[in-house]
Amino acid sequence: MPQNEQIHLDNRPQAEATASNFKLVTGQTAPLQEGQVLVRHRFLSLDPYMRGRMNDAKSYTAPQPVGQVMQGGTAGEVVESRNPKFKPGDQVVGFGGWQEYSVVDGNQPGVLRKVDTTHVPLSHYLGAVGMPGVTAWYGLEKIIQPQAGQTVVVSAASGAVGSALGALAKARGCRAVGIAGGPDKCRYVVEELGFDACVDYKLHKDAHSLSKALQEACPKGVDGHFENVGGMVMDAVLLRMNAFGRIALCGMIAGYDGQPIPLTYPQLILTNRLLVQGFIVSEHMEVWPQALQELGMLVGTGKLRPRESVAQGLESAPEAFLGMLKGKNFGKQLVKVG
Amino acid sequence: MPQNEQIHLDNRPQAEATASNFKLVTGQTAPLQEGQVLVRHRFLSLDPYMRGRMNDAKSYTAPQPVGQVMQGGTAGEVVESRNPKFKPGDQVVGFGGWQEYSVVDGNQPGVLRKVDTTHVPLSHYLGAVGMPGVTAWYGLEKIIQPQAGQTVVVSAASGAVGSALGALAKARGCRAVGIAGGPDKCRYVVEELGFDACVDYKLHKDAHSLSKALQEACPKGVDGHFENVGGMVMDAVLLRMNAFGRIALCGMIAGYDGQPIPLTYPQLILTNRLLVQGFIVSEHMEVWPQALQELGMLVGTGKLRPRESVAQGLESAPEAFLGMLKGKNFGKQLVKVG
Repeated sequence: MPQNEQIHLDNRPQAEATASNFKLVTGQTAPLQEGQVLVRHRFLSLDPYMRGRMNDAKSYTAPQPVGQVMQGGTAGEVVESRNPKFKPGDQVVGFGGWQEYSVVDGNQPGVLRKVDTTHVPLSHYLGAVGMPGVTAWYGLEKIIQPQAGQTVVVSAASGAVGSALGALAKARGCRAVGIAGGPDKCRYVVEELGFDACVDYKLHKDAHSLSKALQEACPKGVDGHFENVGGMVMDAVLLRMNAFGRIALCGMIAGYDGQPIPLTYPQLILTNRLLVQGFIVSEHMEVWPQALQELGMLVGTGKLRPRESVAQGLESAPEAFLGMLKGKNFGKQLVKVG
Repeated sequence: MPQNEQIHLDNRPQAEATASNFKLVTGQTAPLQEGQVLVRHRFLSLDPYMRGRMNDAKSYTAPQPVGQVMQGGTAGEVVESRNPKFKPGDQVVGFGGWQEYSVVDGNQPGVLRKVDTTHVPLSHYLGAVGMPGVTAWYGLEKIIQPQAGQTVVVSAASGAVGSALGALAKARGCRAVGIAGGPDKCRYVVEELGFDACVDYKLHKDAHSLSKALQEACPKGVDGHFENVGGMVMDAVLLRMNAFGRIALCGMIAGYDGQPIPLTYPQLILTNRLLVQGFIVSEHMEVWPQALQELGMLVGTGKLRPRESVAQGLESAPEAFLGMLKGKNFGKQLVKVG
């Protein structure tokens, strides 16, 4: 029964989330029962969707409970097993939360997955070859459905979802254009991720200015857009959409603290006969195997080289998470545990 | 060569359209050439989309040219023909514009269609069994795709599109809920059109108040919405949409004079995984035969009893059109010519 450091949600944010919403708690792991597996976490995944779950608001999942371990994806290794399907040393991905260890029912389908780290590093199973990668895959393949030669835009392009989106779009013969914050991220998006262009939204004060920059980056207009941000960014892209364009709505981080993020010109959806569709990747588990296969291949062959921001130690998770919400991370935000 | 009174677009509106944007002009019809047909108009169709075309703005069709006859749907009869497919006395529907006569190339596919007025009055081919009816059919059948028992909402419910939408939704076993302006229209929507409920938007000052009234009319939430209005109405419905709901975006008359009509909570599209799709019925000619068959059957069997507002005389068209944009009409707005 090892000691188990955990981070709990202590109280809900009033507006902006702060470090005082979290609390470090020391517990013990319970003894294993038949069928259970003890996993030692190596990496915690920090993802923007977690901010939404900190509010007590109607959304697509129940809120994160107060006074309990922050929930989230984890990658680690089995250290003890009372389940014949898992043995100590197995590399596994699960949903263990912000703590050093988790006890998992190994018989429940989908909660713990063995992964092969021969060609893909363990941490990437929380990013490009995990939930964020599949998120990009679903939005591109099932909603945007681009044809070769079309232009696809993604906001938060240097992030875990955006970087996968770019590689997937290029693999389909599209022009991939990113939107990111600051010259370093934009350079990375073009030079390392292989996007055709990247627009720095921080250089623009309003949607019309950003839209003009997008026009230069997208001389043939925008056929598909993958939205992670919302607000000014979405307004700007909407002004550039071609007739019959598709917008996959994945995240609206600009409004996660309760800021108003109205869509200024919804009439463009009509005049350009656009399709706008919101989705949650966890509701489409049927696509995961196919998506993970393509993503693993892109990473294994070096066509997708995702960057990671790794915070050290469980206790650094809250600050790393809050920084990610402000765009301080570079690529996938992880916490290295233990 | 009969004398031919016409209404031209004389100049474009600055903001709100006014009667001074139009001009009555007297011309002559040209002598028929081989293949041409002379049609005497009985009814002109007045439709909200025409307002958009009066602006010189990028939209899905080229703007209405200044100094030319206002374009629009017409129903009438053939008075002279140099085309073997048409003979004098034929009842026809076309796109002859705001004038007493039109000369039509009868060989061009789709521009002139003979109709049977045995069971369906001629004027209805401009409404329930014409473009507005097919518009409702397309949005319901191809975008909303409701299942029996689901709740479908339509704004401008007493209008040509809305009334058809209600009958089509009821025929599919749905709960049909209208939004309309004023007690007379709401009563008509329920008592004559057979909707299950109708909400009077004029009783509400903001989207939240309207949304609360919608909640009472839609106790199981809203699965499909057909939007003709935009602005406060769309905000209100969006707050009531169920997970995986579909919104067919057909018109946004609230913004036709250039008023801002931001969508206040676009994040609801994400959290409820909605699909929002804009469409233009004229781009989907392949569905017209099937749609017209069902609509003709609904009208012929009395399941859809569309009301018409008929203005008398070509010269009344501008005022009737401007009144329609303000919701002064009741059902399909027509002009009786000659």
